Amino acid sequence: MSRKIVPLILCGGTGSRLWPASRGQLPKQFIKLLGDRSSFQETVQRILDPELFHKPVVITNSRFRHTVDDQLEAIGAEASILLEPKPRDSGPAVAAGLAYIARTSPDSLVLTLAADHRVKDAEAFRIAVRSAAEGATGRIVTFGVVPDHPATGYGYIKPGAMRDACGLHPVDAFVEKPDREAALSYVQHGYLWNSGSLLCPADLILSEYERLDPATAAAARRAVDEATIDRGAMLLHPEAFAACNRQSIDYSILEKTKHLCVMPVEMGWSDVGTWGAAWDMAKKDGNGNAGSDQTVFVGAKNNFVLSDHLVCVAGLDEVAVIVTKDATLVYDRRKSELVRAIVETLKKDNLQELNEHAQVFRPWGSYECLDRGSQYQVKKIVVKPGGRLSLQKHAHRAEHWIVVKGTALVTIGAEQKTLRENQSIDIPRGETHRLENPDAVVPLELIEVQTGSYLGEDDIVRLEDAYNRV
Amino acid sequence: MSRKIVPLILCGGTGSRLWPASRGQLPKQFIKLLGDRSSFQETVQRILDPELFHKPVVITNSRFRHTVDDQLEAIGAEASILLEPKPRDSGPAVAAGLAYIARTSPDSLVLTLAADHRVKDAEAFRIAVRSAAEGATGRIVTFGVVPDHPATGYGYIKPGAMRDACGLHPVDAFVEKPDREAALSYVQHGYLWNSGSLLCPADLILSEYERLDPATAAAARRAVDEATIDRGAMLLHPEAFAACNRQSIDYSILEKTKHLCVMPVEMGWSDVGTWGAAWDMAKKDGNGNAGSDQTVFVGAKNNFVLSDHLVCVAGLDEVAVIVTKDATLVYDRRKSELVRAIVETLKKDNLQELNEHAQVFRPWGSYECLDRGSQYQVKKIVVKPGGRLSLQKHAHRAEHWIVVKGTALVTIGAEQKTLRENQSIDIPRGETHRLENPDAVVPLELIEVQTGSYLGEDDIVRLEDAYNRV
Repeated sequence: MSRKIVPLILCGGTGSRLWPASRGQLPKQFIKLLGDRSSFQETVQRILDPELFHKPVVITNSRFRHTVDDQLEAIGAEASILLEPKPRDSGPAVAAGLAYIARTSPDSLVLTLAADHRVKDAEAFRIAVRSAAEGATGRIVTFGVVPDHPATGYGYIKPGAMRDACGLHPVDAFVEKPDREAALSYVQHGYLWNSGSLLCPADLILSEYERLDPATAAAARRAVDEATIDRGAMLLHPEAFAACNRQSIDYSILEKTKHLCVMPVEMGWSDVGTWGAAWDMAKKDGNGNAGSDQTVFVGAKNNFVLSDHLVCVAGLDEVAVIVTKDATLVYDRRKSELVRAIVETLKKDNLQELNEHAQVFRPWGSYECLDRGSQYQVKKIVVKPGGRLSLQKHAHRAEHWIVVKGTALVTIGAEQKTLRENQSIDIPRGETHRLENPDAVVPLELIEVQTGSYLGEDDIVRLEDAYNRV
Repeated sequence: MSRKIVPLILCGGTGSRLWPASRGQLPKQFIKLLGDRSSFQETVQRILDPELFHKPVVITNSRFRHTVDDQLEAIGAEASILLEPKPRDSGPAVAAGLAYIARTSPDSLVLTLAADHRVKDAEAFRIAVRSAAEGATGRIVTFGVVPDHPATGYGYIKPGAMRDACGLHPVDAFVEKPDREAALSYVQHGYLWNSGSLLCPADLILSEYERLDPATAAAARRAVDEATIDRGAMLLHPEAFAACNRQSIDYSILEKTKHLCVMPVEMGWSDVGTWGAAWDMAKKDGNGNAGSDQTVFVGAKNNFVLSDHLVCVAGLDEVAVIVTKDATLVYDRRKSELVRAIVETLKKDNLQELNEHAQVFRPWGSYECLDRGSQYQVKKIVVKPGGRLSLQKHAHRAEHWIVVKGTALVTIGAEQKTLRENQSIDIPRGETHRLENPDAVVPLELIEVQTGSYLGEDDIVRLEDAYNRV
């Protein structure tokens, strides 16, 4: 066995092509589209083999850090977390990850992985990675997926004919996303889908970065050297990180390096970049319909339904129906460009349904509006174990809290009270208060009923905050 | 001006063709499909001309009586209400209405109206009724709608060529719902849609009933004579009403009587019997799409969307999207038979979404589940002015009430408390309690949080009830 591998998981994307399930606040790598886990969680679980892999490094946007924490905790996994102050492209993210790995595990191999891709056959993935690792000395290995249809949504790799003992081919060419006709020809001629993942020695790709994009390499190194530690995660230095060239790694390195080779792999891979691709990956009934227990299809073929409640589709083919609590999308799933057009329309109207889910995530947990009237609002609030809202007060609203699960520690004025399931408390308007979950294990769930003449989120005076939001 | 007219509004239908907006518990005549009013309310408003009409008689199923009361009150209208113990067909409903009218206004004209039809041009309706009333002596006038398309969902009337001074034609034939080809020919040959409405002297149609369906006439008379009065409404005698022949009035009277004539009318009429017909009646944009402020169409034509939240439809034509809180229907709106097929499928699975809305109506008001967890449930409760829930207790759950609008009178054990907006109370498990709205005008709105190991609606012991449900 060769050197161990550090997985570098790129987790900062904010794509809108899976709206309304994927939104700016909680993009597609974090949502449960096709099962019980997000694709980020599945990606982490694929590399939880301590014989082959070191602890992964996750690089994400700083606003997703709590989501990353939560989703790692939910699957009992650990990672080193790097936070981008602002999103750049994949080049700077990889460069910063490499700069971090150069300090912690300079002799290892690095495997870059996108957090929003799906792999049906995790065993095939591991076998391919193992073989690639055997042959990776002095080489940058890309993974080329053997196509099962002439996709127009992926770039292609033309592999050379020669194949070494580890199964690696030289790369004859990278090809941009093709049209339908070109895609057919590529598939016939043995081209592979470019999965975007790389495996290579850390020092090799670092030296290629120094040679081919020295400005980004230096800026990324400085962003790591001058990073600040924020409750266990490393926040890259904003100014230094901003000095990285905003380019994809394909453009800055792969298209220029001489060390490239490709490992063909069949592992049921998809980037799930569109609802059409989600349908491709989903389990389907005999008529090609993908839905849940709560979906009824009548005289309908090849449809895709995602919803928490009952959906009936009748007399239609090739339609995607995406139902969320506050927005529903119905479209011809073969025309993925339509989702982009809709998102552009919503942007013009500045609709909150574009970026925010009904459930809103905060460092301490989440809340969701259950009902809203002219002078009241009902929220479900979940506080993570150990989570602590700010010490706060409201000028225009009173609040009533009823604990429905777990334990609440409530500060109200100068007093503290512990509330258990089925206990309630009233917070008068103007009174200083704080809500905490003192338990180390069980999440706190409570129902909040707000009453008052103004109920906006901005009616809050934060007197003290565990997450530096004062 | 001839004799005044008693409108007899048939309001007992339970059609399922507009599922999921229309459900067994609140069928289509009561829902707000195309505006601020239900079609029942619009029907009542069309006949609120005291010069032309007496107070209407509404005949409905007994389980809809509170809905009828509420909807009449909301528009400030009054009616005499007859309650059918069990639905029969239109024949028995009309016969019972006539038996009632024979006792109260024997010399009047009677106008039968379906509560679930729409009329865009109410003035044209009134003009037609006025003309028909002039010519109704000794005749049964049906209203024949001049077709604006070759509908296959309506029966047709072939009018005779002769036309009297009031605009009335003899009826040459009644024709069943045609296929497409026959419908085209009917429209070309001047046939009219059978709107189902009748205008005639009460004594004439009563004597026709006696002659043509004497069993039903006698049973209906007995059902009225032996009716019981229930808080202002008249509950027809169950056994007597059940003895009426289960037939439509078309079959039992109209196809046999010699007194029939037809008044052609153009009034923008529809029975809104399908989502396709709803689309016909709806306001549409330049691409033929009907939706609300919250609907976005991209590359889409001739679609119909009904929803309270954001719906985006893209790349599809002729699709209906009906979104409710707990069920969504997406189908080819030109194929109305599909809705029936879906409803049949749901019946097999005995799904509550078939009959119940998220909002559940009770004699005292309504409730709606806002959220449900493993050990808790959140409900919004609305109590009508003067409404009074039963004196009750629960073995397995505690309840917490927070008043968000109006005033609550709460009985808890031996005590009574008045709660105003922003006040709350805890009802311990097992404690006797009652909720009332003591106000004569303002509805009471409150949020109820239930906690406990079992939260079914059947965990209730009713000790006393204003609506005889003990």
